Amino acid sequence: MAIALSDTTRAALAADLHALLGDRCTTNPTQIEHHSHGESWHAPGLPDVVVFPTNTEEVCAIVRLANVHRAPVVPFGVGSSLEGHVNAIYGGISIDLTRMNRVLRVSADDLDCQVEAGVTHRQLNKALANTGVHFWVDPGADATIGGMAATRASGTTAVRYGTMREAVLGLTVVLADGRVIRTGGRARKSSSGYDLTRLFVGSEGTLGVMTEITLRLHGLPEAVSAAVCPFETMEGAVSTVMTTIQLGIPVARIELLDELQMDAVNRYSRLSYPLKPTLFFEFHGTSQESVAEHARTVQELASEHGGSGFSWATTPEDRAKLWHARQNAFYAAVALRPGCKAWTTDVCVPISQLAHCVLETRRDIQGSSLVAPLMGHVGDGNFHLIFVIDPDDPTELAVATELNARLVHRAMAVGGTCSGEHGVGIGKIDYLADEHGEALDVMKAIKRTLDPDNLMNPGKMFAI
Amino acid sequence: MAIALSDTTRAALAADLHALLGDRCTTNPTQIEHHSHGESWHAPGLPDVVVFPTNTEEVCAIVRLANVHRAPVVPFGVGSSLEGHVNAIYGGISIDLTRMNRVLRVSADDLDCQVEAGVTHRQLNKALANTGVHFWVDPGADATIGGMAATRASGTTAVRYGTMREAVLGLTVVLADGRVIRTGGRARKSSSGYDLTRLFVGSEGTLGVMTEITLRLHGLPEAVSAAVCPFETMEGAVSTVMTTIQLGIPVARIELLDELQMDAVNRYSRLSYPLKPTLFFEFHGTSQESVAEHARTVQELASEHGGSGFSWATTPEDRAKLWHARQNAFYAAVALRPGCKAWTTDVCVPISQLAHCVLETRRDIQGSSLVAPLMGHVGDGNFHLIFVIDPDDPTELAVATELNARLVHRAMAVGGTCSGEHGVGIGKIDYLADEHGEALDVMKAIKRTLDPDNLMNPGKMFAI
Repeated sequence: MAIALSDTTRAALAADLHALLGDRCTTNPTQIEHHSHGESWHAPGLPDVVVFPTNTEEVCAIVRLANVHRAPVVPFGVGSSLEGHVNAIYGGISIDLTRMNRVLRVSADDLDCQVEAGVTHRQLNKALANTGVHFWVDPGADATIGGMAATRASGTTAVRYGTMREAVLGLTVVLADGRVIRTGGRARKSSSGYDLTRLFVGSEGTLGVMTEITLRLHGLPEAVSAAVCPFETMEGAVSTVMTTIQLGIPVARIELLDELQMDAVNRYSRLSYPLKPTLFFEFHGTSQESVAEHARTVQELASEHGGSGFSWATTPEDRAKLWHARQNAFYAAVALRPGCKAWTTDVCVPISQLAHCVLETRRDIQGSSLVAPLMGHVGDGNFHLIFVIDPDDPTELAVATELNARLVHRAMAVGGTCSGEHGVGIGKIDYLADEHGEALDVMKAIKRTLDPDNLMNPGKMFAI
Repeated sequence: MAIALSDTTRAALAADLHALLGDRCTTNPTQIEHHSHGESWHAPGLPDVVVFPTNTEEVCAIVRLANVHRAPVVPFGVGSSLEGHVNAIYGGISIDLTRMNRVLRVSADDLDCQVEAGVTHRQLNKALANTGVHFWVDPGADATIGGMAATRASGTTAVRYGTMREAVLGLTVVLADGRVIRTGGRARKSSSGYDLTRLFVGSEGTLGVMTEITLRLHGLPEAVSAAVCPFETMEGAVSTVMTTIQLGIPVARIELLDELQMDAVNRYSRLSYPLKPTLFFEFHGTSQESVAEHARTVQELASEHGGSGFSWATTPEDRAKLWHARQNAFYAAVALRPGCKAWTTDVCVPISQLAHCVLETRRDIQGSSLVAPLMGHVGDGNFHLIFVIDPDDPTELAVATELNARLVHRAMAVGGTCSGEHGVGIGKIDYLADEHGEALDVMKAIKRTLDPDNLMNPGKMFAI
């Protein structure tokens, strides 16, 4: 069990880290506060000290000092976590990796690259400009690649290009005892040894600190088209998604926003979309013809299910405007109730269960007093609720907690998962036993083996 | 360290298993011999007893008895392993899973299914006939899904549909102590907990016995086309592959056979392909037009690199003939030297290194006295050598051992892996330290945690 450091230990730890890193080690209250939380509602946790390493060797040295002082180690990227992963709930060292932001190698021919963990996905794609290749995983926020790997993030394009599970080919990880390992490699596939890469991807900093990441890239499509389509009913929108996926039509993005979320988007981005359940589509292809063929098929499916008024966006500018509106949906939702905070939750279910789960969830919300827009990366069966709540109103928090539990249990009852892409952190700990049963004991056994003193992001994923 | 059982223990073990399973437990010498090896050259290892469970509960009971008697447990499918995975080198119990061959669930709408571990991929696809969905991973041999998951198998279609790493969504596993866990689930993606599914996929029976597997399926393509194209030079063939992949053309299969392998195929399948380095292609698409477009592009690339005389196979019968020839390439190679045995090895490298690695490897072979055709799933950078050797000639074995080591070290030197799809077994153990460095210690630590008595397929993957 991790416990807070004594004042003496805290001072000794800070002194040692300062000797190692100089002014890249700080106890400045503003920095401490900044590194105490992500974007979620979860109670902040103040680290004792914040450090800014610039290479793997420094991370090693920091972790070794953490061992000396029995101090928790909490990796921090840009703080876009939605489930409290970065909150230093037992204090300790917040390792801010944003100064490890070098793109180390780009191999366009091999469709891969290697980056330091603090590079954000937009920084990476800027570095990839004019190479013909692109890193497609896009969780919305401009998260670091390290944070995305740690939470097994995905986003709008996962339906076509996969999640961080598929995108990460290899890792450099500093283990709890300060050893450095390299997992995976550059081969597209391998049958050599345990798949440690995928064990660390999604481990939320509980098994070690990722410092370098080898990523799979994809080419830029020859042709792209995007569209927005409102539906008469939520059933119609979801049925269109299910049929599209079941037919194997290779959509690059297929996003659902309910009418409340559309209202939020209209207000926030000064747009005038109809206030109806709406799908945002993007099609990528090797030619204009193939893109047009897929788009035509989906348009026919949509019209069979009450979708009409496809607005097409074929120029890059029109597409940027469309996806900008979608990307800001989270902030648009928050703006629905000024002064309130957002609690975002997500689940993922088999696609055949999507309509059932979305409709039941909407019924729950309509039966409550909460403001909670629904949206999702529905091509994967993944959808989100954003509870926009007054953090000082215990009733609102209690209702949101209850609705979240109902959402999660409904998803798990149909073979789904308690989180499609946000992770466990401190927000979903209570659901893991239900979802994984005895497999949770295996996860804990691995955790104890690799981090016997429970210094690596303690209190996240497991209540140990 | 696993050691052989005493005569007393062996008798007690057999008696207990017989009491549990009746005549589905045998010590018949023919069965013992059959379960002592796969298809590889590695020295056989005789199990003490062979059992044929019919459900997960029986596998549990068998593993519990193994614990009582400290007997090794070696899972066995159809015996198509190429690196000695199924050889019971310390004796013990060979668990033959082929009577666990039920397809438990097919959900065409969700593009997934659940099967028992003993179902073979052809059995599965027979069960999927007329559902519109297909299981695409095809390692050549009609291996069991359990064996394929255990070795992280792939094959000709991995370039389009992925390997078992991507295909396995969830598992039922009997752990070393007899507990049963369920990993993963039916959601297309999840950020909930450690990715135990991918830890067990590729673990070669060393962490437990997989008994049920949830698999991702894909739709049958609307349009399919296939072709064979000979090249003037190996460089030209490999360059065509590299450019095809780098351009992101979605080939479904792209297979390379060298001129010796083509000679073997011609003799074995009574064909008359030119004796030149040859690529076999397959294209899958959502329409005849898109397939034709991709095929045309690749044909142009090939002709720029000295490829000519595309033979197209657009009817199912013609395609079956073409792929039948390719599928029998292993047996064709063995038939080059009647009375000899095949030692197949494989590596996988970044695609930009493929030409270098293939050409250097061919030079090695040409400088030796060995008969060793080369072929590969080259779209993934994966290629195989088949050493057709006289097992009674120590010189041939020594030369093959030396060439294999050169092949593997060459692959690892360019960021590749010692095995793309065959696994480690007993054949590649010596290369893991070089490939994984200190990460190998982490693998061993996980092994010790989940199997402290080293009863699960001991001596495979690690020399412990």
